Amino acid sequence: MGCRQSFRQCCDRPKNTNVRISLPAVCFVWQIVVIILFGIFIRYDQESDAHWAEYRKFQNISSDIENDFYFRYPSFQDVHVMIFVGFGFLMTFLKRYSFSAVGFNFLIAAFGLQWALLMQGWFQSLDPMDGKIKISMESLINADFCVASCLIAYGAVLGKLSPVQLMVMTLFGITLYAVDEYIILNLIHARDAGGSMVIHTFGAYYGLSISWMLYRPNLDQSKRLNGSVYHSDVFAMIGTLFLWMFWPSFNSAITDHGDGQHRAAINTYLALASTVLTTVAISSLSQKTGKLDMVHIQNSTLAGGVAVGTAAEFMLMPYGSLIIGFCCGIISTLGYIYITPFMEKYLKIQDTCGIHNLHAMPGVIGGIVGAVTAAAASEGVYGKAGLINTFDFTGKWKDMVPSRQGGHQAAGLCVALCFGVGGGIIVGCILRMPIWGDAPDDNCFDDELYWEVCLL
Amino acid sequence: MGCRQSFRQCCDRPKNTNVRISLPAVCFVWQIVVIILFGIFIRYDQESDAHWAEYRKFQNISSDIENDFYFRYPSFQDVHVMIFVGFGFLMTFLKRYSFSAVGFNFLIAAFGLQWALLMQGWFQSLDPMDGKIKISMESLINADFCVASCLIAYGAVLGKLSPVQLMVMTLFGITLYAVDEYIILNLIHARDAGGSMVIHTFGAYYGLSISWMLYRPNLDQSKRLNGSVYHSDVFAMIGTLFLWMFWPSFNSAITDHGDGQHRAAINTYLALASTVLTTVAISSLSQKTGKLDMVHIQNSTLAGGVAVGTAAEFMLMPYGSLIIGFCCGIISTLGYIYITPFMEKYLKIQDTCGIHNLHAMPGVIGGIVGAVTAAAASEGVYGKAGLINTFDFTGKWKDMVPSRQGGHQAAGLCVALCFGVGGGIIVGCILRMPIWGDAPDDNCFDDELYWEVCLL
Amino acid sequence: MGCRQSFRQCCDRPKNTNVRISLPAVCFVWQIVVIILFGIFIRYDQESDAHWAEYRKFQNISSDIENDFYFRYPSFQDVHVMIFVGFGFLMTFLKRYSFSAVGFNFLIAAFGLQWALLMQGWFQSLDPMDGKIKISMESLINADFCVASCLIAYGAVLGKLSPVQLMVMTLFGITLYAVDEYIILNLIHARDAGGSMVIHTFGAYYGLSISWMLYRPNLDQSKRLNGSVYHSDVFAMIGTLFLWMFWPSFNSAITDHGDGQHRAAINTYLALASTVLTTVAISSLSQKTGKLDMVHIQNSTLAGGVAVGTAAEFMLMPYGSLIIGFCCGIISTLGYIYITPFMEKYLKIQDTCGIHNLHAMPGVIGGIVGAVTAAAASEGVYGKAGLINTFDFTGKWKDMVPSRQGGHQAAGLCVALCFGVGGGIIVGCILRMPIWGDAPDDNCFDDELYWEVCLL
Repeated sequence: MGCRQSFRQCCDRPKNTNVRISLPAVCFVWQIVVIILFGIFIRYDQESDAHWAEYRKFQNISSDIENDFYFRYPSFQDVHVMIFVGFGFLMTFLKRYSFSAVGFNFLIAAFGLQWALLMQGWFQSLDPMDGKIKISMESLINADFCVASCLIAYGAVLGKLSPVQLMVMTLFGITLYAVDEYIILNLIHARDAGGSMVIHTFGAYYGLSISWMLYRPNLDQSKRLNGSVYHSDVFAMIGTLFLWMFWPSFNSAITDHGDGQHRAAINTYLALASTVLTTVAISSLSQKTGKLDMVHIQNSTLAGGVAVGTAAEFMLMPYGSLIIGFCCGIISTLGYIYITPFMEKYLKIQDTCGIHNLHAMPGVIGGIVGAVTAAAASEGVYGKAGLINTFDFTGKWKDMVPSRQGGHQAAGLCVALCFGVGGGIIVGCILRMPIWGDAPDDNCFDDELYWEVCLL
Repeated sequence: MGCRQSFRQCCDRPKNTNVRISLPAVCFVWQIVVIILFGIFIRYDQESDAHWAEYRKFQNISSDIENDFYFRYPSFQDVHVMIFVGFGFLMTFLKRYSFSAVGFNFLIAAFGLQWALLMQGWFQSLDPMDGKIKISMESLINADFCVASCLIAYGAVLGKLSPVQLMVMTLFGITLYAVDEYIILNLIHARDAGGSMVIHTFGAYYGLSISWMLYRPNLDQSKRLNGSVYHSDVFAMIGTLFLWMFWPSFNSAITDHGDGQHRAAINTYLALASTVLTTVAISSLSQKTGKLDMVHIQNSTLAGGVAVGTAAEFMLMPYGSLIIGFCCGIISTLGYIYITPFMEKYLKIQDTCGIHNLHAMPGVIGGIVGAVTAAAASEGVYGKAGLINTFDFTGKWKDMVPSRQGGHQAAGLCVALCFGVGGGIIVGCILRMPIWGDAPDDNCFDDELYWEVCLL
Repeated sequence: MGCRQSFRQCCDRPKNTNVRISLPAVCFVWQIVVIILFGIFIRYDQESDAHWAEYRKFQNISSDIENDFYFRYPSFQDVHVMIFVGFGFLMTFLKRYSFSAVGFNFLIAAFGLQWALLMQGWFQSLDPMDGKIKISMESLINADFCVASCLIAYGAVLGKLSPVQLMVMTLFGITLYAVDEYIILNLIHARDAGGSMVIHTFGAYYGLSISWMLYRPNLDQSKRLNGSVYHSDVFAMIGTLFLWMFWPSFNSAITDHGDGQHRAAINTYLALASTVLTTVAISSLSQKTGKLDMVHIQNSTLAGGVAVGTAAEFMLMPYGSLIIGFCCGIISTLGYIYITPFMEKYLKIQDTCGIHNLHAMPGVIGGIVGAVTAAAASEGVYGKAGLINTFDFTGKWKDMVPSRQGGHQAAGLCVALCFGVGGGIIVGCILRMPIWGDAPDDNCFDDELYWEVCLL
């Protein structure tokens, strides 16, 4: 703690928010590096390559409609909307930070997805024959997923970082994500269709740890801007609704063809529906006159989708999904009422969007639900082929049994937590250096620092 | 009338808008009941169950892409957007009721779809073997459809009911819808792909009857808030456009695979396009200087989609669709100019969003168009197989002929009307009880009653 | 120049913005004409006709899922969103012109797509057997594409034309487009999947030429309204993001089934991602303190999608797409900084939305990229079958070789330029007539001319 304190003081020089050199430099250099690496490493896979016609004949595939594109593309576009409109508009709720919310979200997502294609490619789909990464629609979905974890982290630090810091945070976040994902999915062989662990738990603790390292004791000097106005709350509802509606696509985008995608979509749809009711109930209970709080409606209604992520493709049963949503609506809303103020006051973690309530807790719940339901899986419920398909008990893992799979799921959750907290602390240290152009404590949450703003 | 009058007086006690007990109680109790009922009744169907792999082999289905998921999912997501963003934002036009418009829309839709899965399941897809309801993507679409009818009804009472009343209205509305739909589609064997009768006619008359029962003689005391501001009108256009764009998906979502979905989408697209032109024409004609009125553009442009609903899958021919849209744009816009004020003044029906013009009249027109075009169907136009597929002349109905089908369509329309008006009157009586926390007449259309609002 | 000057003076009578006769007249007459022409000419094609069941059996098609509907419909809906929400909201950035932006966009798109179905049908899909145009989902996508070119042109004249003028501009624009497209795609046999030439180059120069003909020397009298406010910029970001996200669907909507659609989506996704980074970099560099300009973020981030249009289905390679996006982000943003003011001052072209930077330059770049990459195509990269599929070297064109194809692509670009400039000048002359109800120079960019507006 003393060490952290002294490091902190050393970093606390007066702030200069001019990013005219650093931002363009970072954008140009990184984009050029990415282009070079793409030139060396990235090629189309057989389903997007012009040789598909020959490959199709060779593999005896009866129709073009069996190209994976047609299984994935509608889900991909929904996920894409969640990343850019969903996350972007969800964060527009602050009265004078809408440009940054939606604009920096755009910037870091556009950069992050390119970096993710490289990092995930190296870890997951490097072709041993020619050393190239072969990309397809599924890679694009995975890149969007990867970006989601960094956008979650952005929620914790919203209004407090400069765009350059956000780019750095994203660069490291994507890298950590790719390693983390490789360990959880490939080495540990945990299943995580909707990313409760890999995306939400990791992303949220990554963001919270960074926010903890960058604690601003005098942030209440910016209090006047740390709130919403009427119209900014309506804008934020655009984000909420697109996230809410398309979450079934998020959780089913990369699950198994056929029943896997079908079931994941149904489970997510149901979990989200019951979350809305308990969120409204707790929100109303928490106010003297029973009024609802927009913050809860905008955020906690989504918690069910997070928590059902890992287990979305499992045989949760419709009532199981409803129960998960039911609990998460309550926990998440209570989090906004009690835990966020507690964390700010006692743990020195300033969490602008309350991602602890929306992503961290539901993510951990999702990991636990995944472990329990995997351990409880049985041939009676899944059928023999269904069990093998759902948990991918093939190849090296063909002797795996559900009870052990449950243990692996739990191990995956721990890895996600460790990567999130550990990575966040290290990256937080880096971001404390006084060279990144972030705002002084009395001028946070303000678009005018980084945008030409015309108020009248 | 005298009876209604005295009932009215008995109910007119001073209003208390505190819903701190009732709203959470309703949400919790109903959600718990739904979970229990889901536990007892609802299971995955064979296409979303993990046994699909075995079922597929057994049924000799050649590819996973023939899972119904891939036929329905893109349309489902479009319908989902219409329900939550479309209806939600369409109603944000009031200057200080955007939170309630989009928030309560969210609440009642999330509750309604769960209840709809149960009610529609009991009536339509109870498996006689094990007494369970088997759900799939098509059930989710049907649940969304069912919810649509209650959201239409919400349009009539927008700004005047408390969230608890809306929940009650939805509970009964969904129940009535399920019975109504069972009678029209199963017993009468009417066809109604896009729900002109089942969804729009029923929903609109249900809402109008409720509004009639809850007539507020002093509503003009809230006149200052019963209007739009510049930005709220732009928000409402988000709703309009998403409804307009995705209506082809709405009308084709549950039609026959192949040409049925294809044709329904084309017909709806064309009907909506011509509606826009006649709406603009009449709107401009109605003002002294030819200016357009946003109310018309936001609402009447959608009337063509409503009116083409029943007949969307029929061989309407492209010009037929254009003619339907042409007429509905005129009728709906004239409705806003002449009929809505007339209804308010003489019939004592206060219709906030003008659903009579957007859903009721076009819905009835759609039912009539459906009856006429069904009666006129011939083997020459449809082909033998096409006629059987389109009108489902199979099983018990294999001896049906188009001319009799026309009669059944007309009967379906009458049933929808009766259920709407009758159900609305009964539910309206229930909602008059002075226990629901609705607003006094001089404080309607105001978010501050039910939301924490920060105006600056 | 002298001739143009005198024509201009003759047209400069005092303006009257009352469109109460002309607007309804145009809407009614044209809609009725369209209905009659649809009645004479337009029928369903075999995949949307009720005879599909018989056709399927006859053609030995194994499943309903091979109906073209399932290949195209998700992309179609994305394109539809781009046309109505994307273009519509992108133009809401002006402080008092949001109603017109989104409303007139709606009007001209709804009219344009009907006219496009007719015009494109006559040129491209008239059935020689019965003289009918057979429409399907692909026709609807093509109609939306056609409309896009007119909405691009609308960007140049935003705030300066009356709705009647816009309708006239659209009528001629669609007609020119159909001829232009027929020459480029059918006679010259150029490939243009995403329409860099046919849609963007043509549309942009058409709009710019019209704006040049309608030059308003005293437009700075409306300067007070020719700018954005905070919330209108956030609305415009809705348009930007929906365009950006769905551009992969735009460029892949009508490409070949299978790898063609797959590859086009990947290429577009990557080009757009790198455009964002260079746009941010240049935007930040251009301001003294490194602040970002919303105009650039809203527009230039889309340039990569335009420029990759023609070549989207080619084997551009992922790094190739990134390079295209990289360059276009720079060029487009520099265009906003230097070229737009230059054009206004010296060339007398007033370009409200800066379509020269977003569509014209990137469109031309896209045409050149298409020509170069087509000329460089080889059997080694594409495979024999792939080359034939991608460039459609079949039938009459079966002896075509890539190097000659490159020349044809270049010829196509020239045709698009000529049609755009030539057509724009002629239509501009027509629109100068003082009968159309456009605004005086001191009252442009104002919704109050054509809309009932309530500001409080």
